[in-house]
Amino acid sequence: MIRTGEWTGHTTGIAQGYVQANLVILPKAWAFDFLLFCQRNPLACPVLEVTNTGQPCPTALAPDADLRTDLPLYRIFRKGALIEEVTDIRQYWRKDFVSFLLGCSTTFEAALLKAGIQLDHIEKGYNPPVYISNQPCDPAGKFKGPLVVSMFPIASEKVAQVVRISSRYPKAHGAPVHIGNPQAIGISDLSQPDFGELRAIGEDQIPVFWACGVTPQVVARQARPALMVTHAPGHMFLSNWRDQDIDEG
Amino acid sequence: MIRTGEWTGHTTGIAQGYVQANLVILPKAWAFDFLLFCQRNPLACPVLEVTNTGQPCPTALAPDADLRTDLPLYRIFRKGALIEEVTDIRQYWRKDFVSFLLGCSTTFEAALLKAGIQLDHIEKGYNPPVYISNQPCDPAGKFKGPLVVSMFPIASEKVAQVVRISSRYPKAHGAPVHIGNPQAIGISDLSQPDFGELRAIGEDQIPVFWACGVTPQVVARQARPALMVTHAPGHMFLSNWRDQDIDEG
Repeated sequence: MIRTGEWTGHTTGIAQGYVQANLVILPKAWAFDFLLFCQRNPLACPVLEVTNTGQPCPTALAPDADLRTDLPLYRIFRKGALIEEVTDIRQYWRKDFVSFLLGCSTTFEAALLKAGIQLDHIEKGYNPPVYISNQPCDPAGKFKGPLVVSMFPIASEKVAQVVRISSRYPKAHGAPVHIGNPQAIGISDLSQPDFGELRAIGEDQIPVFWACGVTPQVVARQARPALMVTHAPGHMFLSNWRDQDIDEG
Repeated sequence: MIRTGEWTGHTTGIAQGYVQANLVILPKAWAFDFLLFCQRNPLACPVLEVTNTGQPCPTALAPDADLRTDLPLYRIFRKGALIEEVTDIRQYWRKDFVSFLLGCSTTFEAALLKAGIQLDHIEKGYNPPVYISNQPCDPAGKFKGPLVVSMFPIASEKVAQVVRISSRYPKAHGAPVHIGNPQAIGISDLSQPDFGELRAIGEDQIPVFWACGVTPQVVARQARPALMVTHAPGHMFLSNWRDQDIDEG
């Protein structure tokens, strides 16, 4: 349905139990530094698959898929500037394109829900708060910038369980990067996220922060590559893998 | 001592408790495909660190080290042919060199010994048997070839424990890739290893196979890069990291 353009909406809550992936496409001249950036920052940029140069098929994640048509919405950037949102990138495709598919928090969120942990943004269907922290990523070539984190409020008696469960998914951002003190990572006001929204945090809830898949996109954009294609926020690639396929616990 | 040339011997049993690393140095033009090969074959090629282009210092593993002088013995390859073994590579160094430091079995071997598992090759001080299997690595560009495996005979009642312990070190080849049936991975005669030697395998010992750090060197050599530098077998890079720093269990 996505391929034929029948579905152009976001993928939250769609194809539950299947691994969703962030997409970053870069010309090969930029690919080594970006792969190195991912290797050096594995919590923010967990590599699920990197395609062969010019090859639009992610043979491991979904051998029948075509990355030029199979995401509901793409963003096209020239030198870091957003120039267009499109549902099909065949007109932009280049023979020197390398596609990076990176793990996404949906996988550990599903595991948390299964364990009875309540996640307000999923129950009520909104984008969770995302903050630009003061923690620098380990740079690689032109790719550098701060770690971007997402935050879920967790009931205090559940925090240890949440750490244990999310730790089992290093390919989906893994264990939290910080628990409990937003100031310690440069976040002065939880109510003012850089992306998404904070609707509520209860008296007995602790803010728990994970490395966020927005990080590589922000960093890649700031590097101003000649041309870059990404998924539009929330419009992820749906793979054939089940969440348990990347459970490394 | 290695830097000044006082120590040019192998590193087996040296600096126990510290992480040792395989070294592969390639010109930047070859670096993306090799890093991609490592990403696709993480058990054989567990990346500990990739240096910045032209930078001979592994800033994460040992910020005071110089990869041009700090290994006891290097091998220089031109188009895949071994041309020289040297104790210092300053004369070969190029500004476009990228250095890959890959995890090594010494880390999980130390953990096995600590748990009371006997490893004959360590007790008696010889190179363990290493075989070229019939299992293909996932190729990347010009880098392709079979998985090379090392084998340690393990007492049958200890096999499960050995799996549990080695699994905790994915950055040091991790869990075994095969247990018990050499024919299943294309090894017809255990007594004829491709490298190292099989001195003994007891009646109640099971052959347990791990992905081996020889894999990336064989594969890189077959790709015939213009120039490549590696450590000489057994002459590893000694890092500042402790074995427990890469315990991910």
